[in-house]
Order: sequence, then structure tokens, then C-alpha cells
Amino acid sequence: MGGVTEQDRLARVVLSRIAEPDDRRLGRLVAEVGAVEALRRVRDGDSGLGFADGMRVRLSTADAAADLRRVHDLGGRLLVPGDPEWPTQLAALGHREPLVLWVWGAADLRLLAVRSVAVVGARACTAYGESVARQLAGDLVERGWAVVSGGAYGIDAAAHRGALDAGGVTACVLAGGVDVAYPRAHESLLSRIVDAGALVSESPPGAAAMRSRFLSRNRLIAGLTRGTVVVEAALRSGTTSTAAVATTLNRPVLGVPGPVTSPASAGVHQLIRDGRAVLVTGADEVVEVVGELGTDAVERASGPARAWDGLAERERRVYDALPVRGGADPGELAITAGLTERDVRSALGLLQAARLALHVDGCWRKPPRDAPGTR
Amino acid sequence: MGGVTEQDRLARVVLSRIAEPDDRRLGRLVAEVGAVEALRRVRDGDSGLGFADGMRVRLSTADAAADLRRVHDLGGRLLVPGDPEWPTQLAALGHREPLVLWVWGAADLRLLAVRSVAVVGARACTAYGESVARQLAGDLVERGWAVVSGGAYGIDAAAHRGALDAGGVTACVLAGGVDVAYPRAHESLLSRIVDAGALVSESPPGAAAMRSRFLSRNRLIAGLTRGTVVVEAALRSGTTSTAAVATTLNRPVLGVPGPVTSPASAGVHQLIRDGRAVLVTGADEVVEVVGELGTDAVERASGPARAWDGLAERERRVYDALPVRGGADPGELAITAGLTERDVRSALGLLQAARLALHVDGCWRKPPRDAPGTR
Repeated sequence: MGGVTEQDRLARVVLSRIAEPDDRRLGRLVAEVGAVEALRRVRDGDSGLGFADGMRVRLSTADAAADLRRVHDLGGRLLVPGDPEWPTQLAALGHREPLVLWVWGAADLRLLAVRSVAVVGARACTAYGESVARQLAGDLVERGWAVVSGGAYGIDAAAHRGALDAGGVTACVLAGGVDVAYPRAHESLLSRIVDAGALVSESPPGAAAMRSRFLSRNRLIAGLTRGTVVVEAALRSGTTSTAAVATTLNRPVLGVPGPVTSPASAGVHQLIRDGRAVLVTGADEVVEVVGELGTDAVERASGPARAWDGLAERERRVYDALPVRGGADPGELAITAGLTERDVRSALGLLQAARLALHVDGCWRKPPRDAPGTR
Repeated sequence: MGGVTEQDRLARVVLSRIAEPDDRRLGRLVAEVGAVEALRRVRDGDSGLGFADGMRVRLSTADAAADLRRVHDLGGRLLVPGDPEWPTQLAALGHREPLVLWVWGAADLRLLAVRSVAVVGARACTAYGESVARQLAGDLVERGWAVVSGGAYGIDAAAHRGALDAGGVTACVLAGGVDVAYPRAHESLLSRIVDAGALVSESPPGAAAMRSRFLSRNRLIAGLTRGTVVVEAALRSGTTSTAAVATTLNRPVLGVPGPVTSPASAGVHQLIRDGRAVLVTGADEVVEVVGELGTDAVERASGPARAWDGLAERERRVYDALPVRGGADPGELAITAGLTERDVRSALGLLQAARLALHVDGCWRKPPRDAPGTR
């Protein structure tokens, strides 16, 4: 960690501009020789690269500094592997790990991802599915889990809204740039997510949300989270691709059943019937499955890193202000930390999601030493 | 087969009158020394029998001849193991196999059971569950499967009605005598089942449908069928006992999901989630699971008996009248077999359920030699 060079960062920005997301041949090359050397080979038209011609065409339009300026002007940021905020869970994607992540929002993405669940499903959902997704997302954030979804119509939007309305943290992984509101009708929903969570994309600012990018986006949703809950999905739905990636990563896939008379549930029923998803009926059952398996799988992969290593300044100050015994309310913490009470409340949400803050009887304190995430 | 003595038959009738159904100690004794000797020991107050006192109290009221007269007057019959109509599937119950079966109805029980599915569920079902059970039962009989259930309010009744309305065969396993309409409100439903299927009980005529007998009845439903479909069941429902017996017998348990907001589906969801039931959404999926596993398990247990060995006279005549190639309509078959067309149609339903008659383009013929059930 921390060994990120400026050269590597800029090379990745250029590659993220000229390559399509989830280009596996490029991913393998970067894993093998690094981003700087990979970009050099692409640029020089290295004869060994059969796949780089399309990328070279875009080279003339690539301007890393302009892309970075654009996201900074927005209030967003660029993350590359090795950055403190880079979600360690993504390493499980191997050569399909994104080259960069463009992030816009108040949440620390690494902390958010550590204790997050994907809630995804059909665009053409029913009132039943919408209501279940909203309730499930609300119940998950109340249990200290962040909800990740894709910002689409239907189940995705209901999941984001359920998390936001319950005062929780939610991340939206977009198929286009973080500054491109897609779908257009979700502009205000997306701006609520910026305030309380994060918009995430591996495509640079301004990139269009092209159909071909949805599948790559789905792999990111699965890769960022500890498990994926499918609420409604028709047969042969795109949602099942998110589930398939989760399965590849050994992360649990969960399915919420519905009436067998509803085509919107048919894909979920098929996943469950084929043993590709575990049936769940509510947040407790989700946490039961994802909590155990997720923690095990991820902690084994990422080693015993201390969770607060990656804290942003604001969260670190609030964390330091938390008492070990007893408890303090947000007003007291604001004074100790030298922050506004509003900032303290936001930080507490993120810290709770990362199991770094414990909420007891209206007051907050550090969790016990042996609690997961505090090692 | 065929080695049933009159003495054994009468001893079993007496035991079925004085013992409660599914008395496992009695079952073990009968399995060990036979019904005649078991009855002698019970009657003589054999000091080794710690469980026979309650049975002896009822001895004075037992009148085997009267019980048999009663069921014959009704138009019903008594079956004991070894009778041609005794369902061979029941052997899997071991010492929990019923001592006798009292049967009232047009169907041959052995043929019916060979290709049957239990459809059971909540008494307090929803409109959704009722509609699904009815549809499922109708679709199953259209695929040549008989539907077995318990005649209770709710899902059971919907399953029987769905089978009957589709012109299919259905059996109702009662907790009281076959001449005791329980629940009272189902009197006309039960009489429809007599015409098109069978009422079945291990308790003698006149026996009350006592609560304590429901669990024993549920084991019979599971034992008679190739698999059990649960349509709606609340948490901790009695329906799960049928499922548990089916599991013990290595017969598949299937669950139809519903809205997670419906408490009537919570028990089914739990069965599926715990891996105790396979999720199914319709008849094709039921047949896919039950057809394979059921056939394998049962055929292995019962050996290569020829399915038509157990045919009743009417069915045998219709079976003999069926052409091997081409086809004949029920009118032609009636002439060949010397039966009314009405009788031919009933017989064809049963033969089809046993895969002994093939329905092609409105005409009927014998199935190909290599088809299951004709070996």
C-alpha cells in the first residue's frame, strides 16, 4: 500500500479513457507488466498486442490532466489500486480488477465496501418488488450495512431510496462517468447519493452509459460487495450476470422469492432452484449468510489489515474522539473532534458501516477490541 | 404377493381397530412376528408388551367382520400388504407401514400411487395459494400424475378440486374412517373423490378424525407418493411433518414460493432456505424432480414387477383392448372390451396415470414396450 507512483496513476487514467471497461487482455497485460509499460506498448503499437488498435485510435483524445481536473472540479476523486481508499475486496477480481475508480461522494469507498451488500434486480419491477427492495435496503442499513446498486430504474432505484430514507449509506456503480446522470430521470436520486454515499465508475468523467458497459458495471457491483441480493429478475435477465460474478468470487448470491405467477420473479426462482442462490426473505437472513461467508472469504484474501488505516481525515478525527467505554452523543463528539455535528453524524454512519463505531442507547463509542474490523 | 391369509387379514383388521395409527412398537412387533401372533400376544396380555394395555381395553368392541361388512356395504374395500392393490411404495415406511388400508373409490390405489404427487399446505391459505394449488394440481393430472392430499380446508381442498376439475385422478388420505366426512363441509368434495379417485384411511370405518391422527395421516400422504409439494405453510406448520417424512423416505420435497410479505409462505421459504425443499414454480418443474428421483427410488425398492399385475378387472379389459399401434377412441374400446363408454373413460384415466395407456390425437393405445411401467 502507498506505493502508488504519479506515473502509474496517470498511465491508468489514460488507459481508462482509451480502453473499454473490463478489457481482459489489457487487464492481464497490466497485471503482468504494470500500467506504465502496458500504456507504452499500446502507444508504440507493440506488434505483440493484437487488441490495441482500437485503443490507439482514442489516444489523441486522451488528456489525463483534463480528466483529473474535471473530477476534482466536481468534488470527486480518482482512486487506483494502492490508494488508502481503494476497496481491497476488488483484488478478488484478479485481472478483471478495474484499472481505476472514479468516485464522487461523501463516503469512504473502502470502508463502505467492507460491509456492503449489493441489492439488484429488474428494471421492469412490480410494486411488490419495489416495496421489498426498499424495505430490505432500509433494514440492511439499519443493521450497519451499506447498500450497493446500479442506479437503474426499478429495483436498483428502490434499493438506493430505501437506504437513503433510512439514513444509511449507499453506493451507486454507474456504467458511464460519475458526472453523467443516467438515467436522466434519476438526477436528483444520484445527487442524494453523492451527499450520503458515493457514485462510482471505472469510466472517466463524461463517458456515456453505453449498453455494452452494463455487464462490466455488474461485475464491479459484485466485486465491491460481500454478497448480492437479487430481488426481482425475469428469466434471462442481465441481473443474473451480477449474480454469476458474485458466484465466481465465492461471494454469496441471495434471492428474494415472489409469487410464482409473477414473471418478474421467474429469474430469481430459477437461481434458487438451480442452487445458484440462497433464498432469503429479509435483512436478518441476508446478514446471516453474507456476514459469515463474506467476512471469512474477504479477510482471508486481504490479510489482517487494520480497518482504520484507510480512514479519511474527517472519519479518523471522529474515530479518535469516540470513547472506549460509556458513550458520547454527536454533540459531544463534535466538540471533541472540532467538526460540525452534521459532519460527525455522516462520519458516524460510515464508521458504523465499517464496524468502527458502536451505537448504544443513543450514544456512540468504539467497539470492543476483539470485534471484527478492529484488529 | 398373493400370500395373504384370511387369518392375517382379520388379525390386521382387529389391530387397526384397537391400536392408534402409526403405533411404532406394535409396528415393530408385527414386522417381527406377524399380525396373527402380535394380536395373540396383545390379547393374552403378554408380559413382555408394555404398550398393549390401552389396546386391550378396546378389544371387547372390536368386530372384524362388522368392520368389513361396513366398508363393503359402502362399496369400499380393505387392503393389506400382499394384496394386488396394496401400494408397494408404502414398504419404504418399514415398521411404520400401515397395518391395513381402508379404501373407498373408483381408482386402483396401487396404480394411482405409482405415479402420484402429494400437494399439501396450509388450511389458512391465501387466495394466491389456493389458486396456485388448484392450477398445479390440474397441470399435474394433465401430465398423467395423480394428486394426493388430505382433504383439509385450504390448500388440500384446492389441490383435490384442481385435479377433479381437470378430469384427473386424486386420492384423499383421511385421519378418520373413509365413511366419516371430515371436515363436514367437504362432504360433496369427498364424494366427488370417491367417483374419480379414492378415499384412503388406516383407521376403520366410523373412526373419528382425531387431532392426534393427523400426523400419522401425514406420513401416509408422504409414503403413498413419489414426492411432496408444499404450496403454503406458516412457520412451525403441521405441513412440514409431511415434508419431514418424505425426506426420511428419500422422496423429494418441493416448495412453491410466494411473496415474502405473506406469513402463509414463510414455512415454505424456510424449507427451501434450509435445503429441505427444492423450489418449484409449476408442474413441469415438479415432474422434472419427482419423475426422475421418484422412479429411481421406487423401482429399485419394488423390483421389476410388471405394473399391470395389479390391475382391476375393468382396467385389465380396457388395457387388453388397447391397440399397440395406431389408436382407438373410447367408443371403439367400449365395444372391444364389452364395457360402457363411461367405464372405459374412467379406466383410461387410471391406465394413463400408471403409464399403461397413451393418449395421442384423441385416440388411445398401449405405450411403447420400453416405456417406464410396462417392463
